[in-house]
Parts: sequence; C-alpha cells; structure tokens
Amino acid sequence: MNELETTGQPGAVEQIVHRHRGDSVETVTDHVGQEWPVALVFNGISHAVMMCTPRDLEAFAVGFAISEGIVGRSSDIQDIEVACFEGEMPYAEVQLTVVQQAFVALKEKRRALAGRTGCGVCGIESIDLLDLQPEVVPDTGFLTRLAPDAIARAARALPAHQSLTKLTGGLHAAAWCDAKGAIRYAFEDVGRHNALDKLIGQLVLDRADAKDGFVFLSSRASYELVRKAARVGIPMLATISAPSSLAIAIAKKAQLRLVSFCRESGYVEYGTR
Amino acid sequence: MNELETTGQPGAVEQIVHRHRGDSVETVTDHVGQEWPVALVFNGISHAVMMCTPRDLEAFAVGFAISEGIVGRSSDIQDIEVACFEGEMPYAEVQLTVVQQAFVALKEKRRALAGRTGCGVCGIESIDLLDLQPEVVPDTGFLTRLAPDAIARAARALPAHQSLTKLTGGLHAAAWCDAKGAIRYAFEDVGRHNALDKLIGQLVLDRADAKDGFVFLSSRASYELVRKAARVGIPMLATISAPSSLAIAIAKKAQLRLVSFCRESGYVEYGTR
Repeated sequence: MNELETTGQPGAVEQIVHRHRGDSVETVTDHVGQEWPVALVFNGISHAVMMCTPRDLEAFAVGFAISEGIVGRSSDIQDIEVACFEGEMPYAEVQLTVVQQAFVALKEKRRALAGRTGCGVCGIESIDLLDLQPEVVPDTGFLTRLAPDAIARAARALPAHQSLTKLTGGLHAAAWCDAKGAIRYAFEDVGRHNALDKLIGQLVLDRADAKDGFVFLSSRASYELVRKAARVGIPMLATISAPSSLAIAIAKKAQLRLVSFCRESGYVEYGTR
Repeated sequence: MNELETTGQPGAVEQIVHRHRGDSVETVTDHVGQEWPVALVFNGISHAVMMCTPRDLEAFAVGFAISEGIVGRSSDIQDIEVACFEGEMPYAEVQLTVVQQAFVALKEKRRALAGRTGCGVCGIESIDLLDLQPEVVPDTGFLTRLAPDAIARAARALPAHQSLTKLTGGLHAAAWCDAKGAIRYAFEDVGRHNALDKLIGQLVLDRADAKDGFVFLSSRASYELVRKAARVGIPMLATISAPSSLAIAIAKKAQLRLVSFCRESGYVEYGTR
C-alpha cells in the first residue's frame, strides 16, 4: 500500500481523550490505532490468532503464510477471504485455501506439536523446536548496487508513509526500498512483525522480487524479524532503533546485512564479536 | 531489582560496531541488549519459549506463571531452578515445580488445546479461546490516594532506572510506583511483556501488594499488557507511548485506569467512545 492509498482507510478509530497538563484538563477527540484479534484459518482449521491492525489483511495473511513457512510460494495459496466482525470487541477472520501438499505438511507439523500451548515464539514450546538456523540469503549482487545514500534517503522518506502513526502516535511501519533508497511499499501495524508480514505478503501478491530491495523498519530488530526477512531472501534489514544480540547472530548466520539506528545522518553496522 | 543493583549484571553484551556518518566509518566496541530463548518448564513439561533478556529470570518465571493464570498465588510454586547455557546460541531454561492442583489444571488446559500450533497471543489458535473478559480490578481506594504529580514524578525518575537502555539504546522498562509516584521496582527486557512479568514476579516474591501501586511502562499499551496487569489487580497502568484500541477497551472492562503519553508535563486519559 503506498502512501497515496492510505488516507481514509481503517487502522485508526476516534477516541475521546482527556489531556492533562498540570492542573488543566482538556477533553478532545483523538485517534488510536486499532488492535484486533485476527484469526488465520487454513483450509477450515484455525491456526493462529494475531493481534493486528485491521487493514491490508489479505497481504498480512499471505506474508504470514510465507514468512512462517506454511507455504513455499504464492501459487500454493488458492483462495483468500477476509471477514471483519464489528461490535464491542471487533475481530477478523482470514480464510486461506492452500494446496493439498501445504495443508498436509501443516497438519503433520501440528500433529508433531500436539499438546503444546506455545507462547512467545510462534507457539514454540521447547528450545529444540526453535529455528536458530535461518536460510542463507542468496547473493544476487543487490548490496553492491546499493547507493551510498540509500539508507539516509529511506530514513528521510519514511515519515511521509506513516499516516496512521501521525494520526495515533503509536504504530510500526515496514517499508520496502529499492537500491537507491526510494520507498516502494510501506505498511503500518500495531505489531512490527505484522507490518513486516503485510509487506512480505504484498511483495508476493505483486510478484515483486524480495531479493531486489531492502526492508526499512521503524522499530528495533529482534530475532523474529530477521528470521522472517531471511526466509524470503531479503538481503538487508535496516531499522531505526536498536538490534538485539540474537538479531545480530541470526543475521550473520543468514548472511543478511543488518543495519540499525538508521538516520538521515548515519547508521550502525554490526561486525564480528 | 532497584537501580543500585543493576550495574554489572547480565542483560547486555559487548559488540564491535561500525558507525557510518556520511563517508566516514568508525569501528568501536558498543553494547547490545541480550535476547535469549528462555524455556519455561512446569513439573518437567516444557510449556513455552519466550525471547527474553537473561536477567531476573526467577522473577520472570514467577510473573509469567501468575499473569498467565498458570498458578493463582506464589505458594503454588514449590521450587524454581534457573539454568543458563552459554555458547554460540545461548539460552536458558527455568524449571518450575508447581503444586499438583495447578499442574493438573495446566495439563487439562493443554489437553483441551491439543494440536494447536498457536502464534501471536500466547499460543491462542482461535478467537473463541481468546480471553477478552479480564478480571475486574478490585477498588482498594488506591486511585483516591494517588498524588496529583505521581505520574510526572515517575516519568522524571524512570530514566535513572534504565541502565541497560542507556547502555544499548533498546530495551523496555516496567516500573512499580507508590501513590506518590516514587519508583519502588524497575525491570528491563527486550520484550515489554517480559519486563512486566519480571515486575509482577518480584512483587509476588516480595509479598508486595500489587493493588497498592501503579505500573509505569516505557512502551506502548497493548491488549496483553492490560490483561496481565488486571490479572494481579494493578489499579493503574501508565505508559510513555500510545495505547491500542483494544488496550483501552480491555482496561475499561477491567476497571483499570489507563493513562498514556505520560510525560513530566502531562498525560492522556481515555474516556467513553
């Protein structure tokens, strides 16, 4: 979703707020970012509920299915239907129909994990099940084509793509940039993982080559963000805030370039400990 | 853990970084926040893996067990052992021994959920399993005792308790404050939920009354943070950044006071839509 299409779309709701400053209180209408439970249902079987901002849900579901390894390619997804249920506690349900092979693999995976109540890392219950061996990102030469000022350019351009953040003061953005640092796609969500999944999903839906660009995130860099990016071959992840130790370790294993504290004025790259 | 005990503890590691500014590159030793997989094992059965900063793990495990409703009170936990495994991909394991009644309930819950691969909200697989009916926080009169400048005082004091954030530029903090806004406990973690769980756990371990203070968070307010706070009867949640729509809705249901954008100069309170 580029910025021109953003205005007037869902993602924020009006909210009466009381602004306190010293002894004075002002009551005004403001906006807050929407957080909805979004159920992802594969071939009729409910698989996961993510807390998500209810826009671009088709892209989100596709990105989740790809970045979590449920399907290998977009053609494995035969149909997607998004249903939103308004009310006091609104929620959404995305029904995906995937090819038999992917569904069988998902059922096998679920059987193997039967009984786990998972929490934290995508339902992972024990350390053995944790994927600490990311795919190695193929070298397509993108990084050699990267303009020296690409990161600065993306950092300068991102705020113009964060209309929901401007409205609510609190969402994350994930943008996809070309070798010159021009932002080609940008998505917002209350969850940084969801914003990245929406971005990955739209790249897939548009048959864009994820290997021919870099991702710029408004957030910190954590394990899961690097792992998701590696899975689709994204050669570089640039974040505005700090990386974690494991994000750096996984990026090294994946041979994915990680840069953080990205500003117009500079950025930080991570070397060997 | 108060600030005096923070220095020199784990939570950050040294990291060689390359700082780019314009055409110049400076290679220096910096610090990054540690993100470790931490497995929580109840009576020998692995239950969840959280991506967590490896300090205060005993408090974290107790807080998680309480805020996720696995045990009802600290006396239900008979033993806790924390083991850290260093190496290329370090991780930790916390073994909890809980009373038979809690373990039977956990096994029953796991059986009911058999087969789910959960993701997003603590392993929740379908909307029906999502807990959108939080406990109502008991009214102990704390809010009537709250000093008018308590939020401003906590906002002013928090940075002095964020030694890991100062070092790494990227962790979250959860503090517990008395009615005057004095910070009594503060914990840091790469995950805001973990920071809150560490805080809840230490309150429980110290037999402090969670109903007699408020929580001040460096992060945004989301569904899960409000739900965890409500479960232990915390009467007010104050956050530095924005709340989500569902955080506001759940806080209302729980009759928990939610204030956000908390600064020394003011804060925002949420009214009826």
